[in-house]
Amino acid sequence: MRILILGGDGYLGWPTAMHLSALNHEVTVVDNYLRRRLSFEENVEALTPAPNLLERIRLWQEKRGLTIKPYIGDLSDWSFIANVFDETEPEVVIHYAEQPSAPYSMLNRAAASLTLNNNLNVTANVIYAVREFCPQAHIIKLGTMGEYGTPNIDIEEGWLDIKHKGRSDKLLFPRQAGSLYHTTKIMDTDLLWFYVRTWGLRVTDLMQGPVYGIFTEESRGHEELLPFFNYDELFGTVLNRFIAQAVAGYPLTVYGGGGQTRGYLNIQDTVNCVRLSLENPANLGELRIFNQFTETFTVNELAEKVKTVGKNLGLNVKVKRIKNPRKEKESHYYNPAHTGLLDLGLQPNYLTDKALEEMLSHVEKHKNNIHEHKIFRNTKWD
Amino acid sequence: MRILILGGDGYLGWPTAMHLSALNHEVTVVDNYLRRRLSFEENVEALTPAPNLLERIRLWQEKRGLTIKPYIGDLSDWSFIANVFDETEPEVVIHYAEQPSAPYSMLNRAAASLTLNNNLNVTANVIYAVREFCPQAHIIKLGTMGEYGTPNIDIEEGWLDIKHKGRSDKLLFPRQAGSLYHTTKIMDTDLLWFYVRTWGLRVTDLMQGPVYGIFTEESRGHEELLPFFNYDELFGTVLNRFIAQAVAGYPLTVYGGGGQTRGYLNIQDTVNCVRLSLENPANLGELRIFNQFTETFTVNELAEKVKTVGKNLGLNVKVKRIKNPRKEKESHYYNPAHTGLLDLGLQPNYLTDKALEEMLSHVEKHKNNIHEHKIFRNTKWD
Repeated sequence: MRILILGGDGYLGWPTAMHLSALNHEVTVVDNYLRRRLSFEENVEALTPAPNLLERIRLWQEKRGLTIKPYIGDLSDWSFIANVFDETEPEVVIHYAEQPSAPYSMLNRAAASLTLNNNLNVTANVIYAVREFCPQAHIIKLGTMGEYGTPNIDIEEGWLDIKHKGRSDKLLFPRQAGSLYHTTKIMDTDLLWFYVRTWGLRVTDLMQGPVYGIFTEESRGHEELLPFFNYDELFGTVLNRFIAQAVAGYPLTVYGGGGQTRGYLNIQDTVNCVRLSLENPANLGELRIFNQFTETFTVNELAEKVKTVGKNLGLNVKVKRIKNPRKEKESHYYNPAHTGLLDLGLQPNYLTDKALEEMLSHVEKHKNNIHEHKIFRNTKWD
Repeated sequence: MRILILGGDGYLGWPTAMHLSALNHEVTVVDNYLRRRLSFEENVEALTPAPNLLERIRLWQEKRGLTIKPYIGDLSDWSFIANVFDETEPEVVIHYAEQPSAPYSMLNRAAASLTLNNNLNVTANVIYAVREFCPQAHIIKLGTMGEYGTPNIDIEEGWLDIKHKGRSDKLLFPRQAGSLYHTTKIMDTDLLWFYVRTWGLRVTDLMQGPVYGIFTEESRGHEELLPFFNYDELFGTVLNRFIAQAVAGYPLTVYGGGGQTRGYLNIQDTVNCVRLSLENPANLGELRIFNQFTETFTVNELAEKVKTVGKNLGLNVKVKRIKNPRKEKESHYYNPAHTGLLDLGLQPNYLTDKALEEMLSHVEKHKNNIHEHKIFRNTKWD
């Protein structure tokens, strides 16, 4: 199939591109290096330098003899995105092209504005481009479990059957996110749901939990094909950060009580979930929503796991409770459904000691690249 | 009180400014004439020319000896809005400053993009400006009943007590709007709700139904103080359009079955609802939501009312069913709550024959200004 991956240089975009290319799909990637630029500006670059997208593609071609086509440009610019869609005529559009950091979106007004404008204008342009150039194409959009927040009821997959005063309807599960970034994902859902109903678009919206890990089938053993691994507060997801902190001998920073529970998944499962969604497309006129994670943990549980496995590897891992810089519940009910992707055949890669060991060993090799002052900056929500 | 009215040149903004000025509040109005520019570009100007905002203020001063302070500029530009807030230090911010037309938002990609960017960036800037310059200020934001769409359950005022699998929570009433314009209002709600929780803002969000009418206490008898009266499909609300069509001998255009039910209100009630919200502010950290309308009608009922009252005035009013250019249910359940503003003391001005006669007589006086080709353009949703 002709697959267009928007944000194809990113932490998840690049592994997805390799995975689908390895399956002999005709893969095109688009990126404007926004994530790299923001990491550079905020002085929080990844653990190891990643080759640029054209180099990555050349290396992939060298190793596997497979071609990926790149476009470098800004998808919020209509003249650019229209040209990309016109030339590629995609059958599937995988949309990762957003500013992905919650703390970044809370840094200051300029960062908030960039997040709001980039994320919404890219999503809007994707909708208009699909409508104009490939109205049958399947849009696979990365949302976030964070859209739901932490309500006191079970979280269903996107929708809720509501009975109220003797009548009933199936409506979007009410959303209330914990950061501006997560709120832009809610707004994306609003936008997609409107145009799905109005224009009959075909959309899968993946409510993804925090991702951890670095290796996928296609990159294992090929350092230069690995995605970014950020260990900082802005662009490093929590478990990845803890791994680097454990290696660096920097106490694991647990915010507040540490009872915050989220649904996590391995980066290999992200790639597999996206592939399964692609192989089992939504119908025209359908907004299909899956909750994309494999298991839930509290922050305390993650810290304990890293501490235990770290100890086995001879690391002296300390855990430090700090005042929570975010506004969030530190103890709450959390029971989200997640059967949709399992029903499509997902075989989860759980967070085993072996998985933790592999990550710790990899980061250990690059220990000298960890700069302690880049780990924590205490970005406050208020 | 020091009151800042954003969009103070608009159909609702200007009458609100006069009303609050008449009550001796210290009123500042801000506008960039976006609505006037779009009306001009789309060749759908109002029934009578309105003086510009500085002239309106001069005329108001002449008649009543009261001062209103104007700013002309674009609120999506931070350097402008920051200066306005810094200089005025408002205690209340009334936010009307959005592109307000559903059909305009569906015209084409450029109009959609303008709607999305204008509406969201102004709302975001208002939030950031309140946070920076007047964190205690009460934001009164105009939303729309259209945010809820037409679900098969009773619509509550903003929130819904949900019982699900033996647990319960009070969450935002699920939203699903019928146009991009209405969808931007949902996104405004998402944004406000996030920052209310995070920064403790004080917000009243008014889910307003379609407004009709032209006269308010302050403008009655003073033609030059009247707000815009648009009779076109883009900027004319349905009843105002029907009034002009009746006068022009142009058949009332009912879309499809005409069973579409909405909650309507008189422009005088808009002004009164905003004043009541202001006199009874929300608490800090509260997103208070009211459904702002006084009675519900189907489109068929509105057409019949205009036909009957028109006949009494000697007009031969015809009703014409046309293929619905929109995507909407033409027959549906609709039972929205609206007690919040009544509890604050709202005395509704219902849609009486007398109210219709007054509107018809006014438009009759300006009959020569009605250009039939401007009434209907059949803006299609798909």
